[in-house]
Amino acid sequence: MKWTSIFAIVVLALGVLCWGQRLLEIPEYDGRDRVHELTNKNYKTVMKKYDIMVIYYHKAIGENLMARKQLEVEELALELAAQVLDDLHDKDIGFGLVDVKKDVAVAKKLGLEEVDSIYIFIDDEIIEYDGELAAETLVEFLYDVIKDPVEIINNERELKGFFNLVEDIKLVGYFKNEDSLSNQKSFLIGLTVTSVQIATNLKLDLNEVNFYEPFMDEPVIIPGKPYTEAELIDYIEEHDRPTLRKLEPHSMYETWEDDINGQHIVAFAEESDPDGFEFLEILKEVAGVNTENPDLSILWIDPDDFPLLVPYWEKTFGIDLSSPQIGVVDVKDADSIWMEMDDEENMPTANELDIWIEEVLVGKIDPNDNEDHDDFDDIDSEDSDEEKEKKDNEEEDDADKNDDEINYNDD
Amino acid sequence: MKWTSIFAIVVLALGVLCWGQRLLEIPEYDGRDRVHELTNKNYKTVMKKYDIMVIYYHKAIGENLMARKQLEVEELALELAAQVLDDLHDKDIGFGLVDVKKDVAVAKKLGLEEVDSIYIFIDDEIIEYDGELAAETLVEFLYDVIKDPVEIINNERELKGFFNLVEDIKLVGYFKNEDSLSNQKSFLIGLTVTSVQIATNLKLDLNEVNFYEPFMDEPVIIPGKPYTEAELIDYIEEHDRPTLRKLEPHSMYETWEDDINGQHIVAFAEESDPDGFEFLEILKEVAGVNTENPDLSILWIDPDDFPLLVPYWEKTFGIDLSSPQIGVVDVKDADSIWMEMDDEENMPTANELDIWIEEVLVGKIDPNDNEDHDDFDDIDSEDSDEEKEKKDNEEEDDADKNDDEINYNDD
Repeated sequence: MKWTSIFAIVVLALGVLCWGQRLLEIPEYDGRDRVHELTNKNYKTVMKKYDIMVIYYHKAIGENLMARKQLEVEELALELAAQVLDDLHDKDIGFGLVDVKKDVAVAKKLGLEEVDSIYIFIDDEIIEYDGELAAETLVEFLYDVIKDPVEIINNERELKGFFNLVEDIKLVGYFKNEDSLSNQKSFLIGLTVTSVQIATNLKLDLNEVNFYEPFMDEPVIIPGKPYTEAELIDYIEEHDRPTLRKLEPHSMYETWEDDINGQHIVAFAEESDPDGFEFLEILKEVAGVNTENPDLSILWIDPDDFPLLVPYWEKTFGIDLSSPQIGVVDVKDADSIWMEMDDEENMPTANELDIWIEEVLVGKIDPNDNEDHDDFDDIDSEDSDEEKEKKDNEEEDDADKNDDEINYNDD
Repeated sequence: MKWTSIFAIVVLALGVLCWGQRLLEIPEYDGRDRVHELTNKNYKTVMKKYDIMVIYYHKAIGENLMARKQLEVEELALELAAQVLDDLHDKDIGFGLVDVKKDVAVAKKLGLEEVDSIYIFIDDEIIEYDGELAAETLVEFLYDVIKDPVEIINNERELKGFFNLVEDIKLVGYFKNEDSLSNQKSFLIGLTVTSVQIATNLKLDLNEVNFYEPFMDEPVIIPGKPYTEAELIDYIEEHDRPTLRKLEPHSMYETWEDDINGQHIVAFAEESDPDGFEFLEILKEVAGVNTENPDLSILWIDPDDFPLLVPYWEKTFGIDLSSPQIGVVDVKDADSIWMEMDDEENMPTANELDIWIEEVLVGKIDPNDNEDHDDFDDIDSEDSDEEKEKKDNEEEDDADKNDDEINYNDD
């Protein structure tokens, strides 16, 4: 695909800046074509050229002009990512496109399954990326993929750093040598401890691995040591839906698809705001109490991570995101119902929140009961947004007052 | 300016998704023109229409094609920001452009001074934005501008949230009523405490305000209570160059311009990595010891915040950013010199780092002595990148071994 004019010229414009100023200029696309269109004929040759191959398995475009334009925007993000990673000195990272209709054979041979996903081929592994299709987010994800997922904890400060990683699933094991834990699964940070002192602090026996859910202070000892790699991976996959998880740009669509009976319990809380922080602490406490419940997974969204979506969410859900909120969202029609919090200075207690969650789980609180929202389903035009907004705001202000809470959910 | 084709069509394409899926679609520009070109004739009328006005004071474009294209990219970011904020229900936010050459009279009347800056007019205040010109970063900044900068700390959890905000300057005062601290300065989070219990925990007297530098556990009591608002602002402005500060997208250019004698001490450390976390802890310790030194301000960059710049920085500085680094950078020509760290598993001690910083401050370690780098200055073409990269890597691997450290700096 040819990219001309604007992007190439912007880069030339930056070229006249002095070096010191350029240090902080976020790169723009330079117009060079780096993303390969993979076919049955070229895919093996192309893939052999790179240490890591990033393949976007996209919808068929065909004659559909809209789909074609959308793909152009997405390809632009991939081109920028490819351009930036051109400068990496230790790895060659290639980018490719596979069309679900045109390249059926390639997709089959490579094992691509989910359309609109990105597959990363590294060594003998395939890692799926189902996050925001933006150069910045994808590139950051790729750095994590390249990085050795196993870190050695040598001292107290590194241990503090380990405990500071609260948002991801993490494993820690105590081994005599560094090679004993070599789990390559992405985004599962394996950490090994070789010091007796630190193992003692963590109450770890030799060859034992502890599993930490996100936001949990207390680990679970993985049973059956010593483990094979396969056993560890099995355990992790069985336990990879945590009680409380954070929506993050690099995995947002994957997380969203992992709903429970078509619904998500969604909590909005801004960590950098004292009220948001307080609510998050309460959430963690409730999650800690319910950590054994496989039917509960609360999705925490920090509005700071998605600034461009905040006004849209406020409008769609009829809530004010400048203070914390918790609600249940139907993933199909975006119907939702939100916990009544009378005052942002007066958060619910952990106990009140626990009772509310219990009512959600047994179906006493259900977004589909909130019938005022049904008009959403029929609207697919942008034109009436302003009218709709006013109407929604009025309706949704009243939403929480709806006492008629019978479960119409037929799942 | 007319925006056609690709952007408008993408939004239509999203329109066919069902509501649930749309919830997480990051918006693209819809092609509607929302950014005003301000002139002497229209600026008063335009500005009266909005609660908040965001004005980009840009370079003259004239006949310069490159400058024009660059402005188009920047304007696109502003258009997307304006589109997203169109949905805000409680504030009307307008966007405008002022050309430094064409609109001299407007700039003068509005008090715009620094070209390539964004000025935000809110109530009787003007706030300058000198960060990344990306819709996401600007919109997030605007939310903070809208928000009341004063929070009331009511309980222990909110106090914990207060201590969790380590990256910004913060103030906390103990007052009998909520109106006593109403400092509107952006990005200075004022916090008031009304509970005796919490005031006691913070060792605060009535009407007293404490000032926290970023990353410092111990506050400074602002002298001379009770204060006028002007006195508080004066104190903050006098102390707004902290010993350790983080480079953040919303203020990156402003921070970078605030160099000391044309140089920055730059520390790269990834907080989410145990080694990076460890190094950051050491940095904080050193900063704590040197907090009284007005000539020291270490710039901490978390590579995770700038993924698109990482390969470029690695190449320019000849360093590997997968482990922590500290160096001195000349802001004019990007010459740099980096501390030798023999092993990422073996960080320097706080004492070693303190000695290294001392040598930087007295000029014994100086990036301009690193003559191998001088060839950077003459290169302004993108074409020779690959050759240059190889050469730089070879040269810069040897950089730290250069023992000939005499200060040629004539500042």
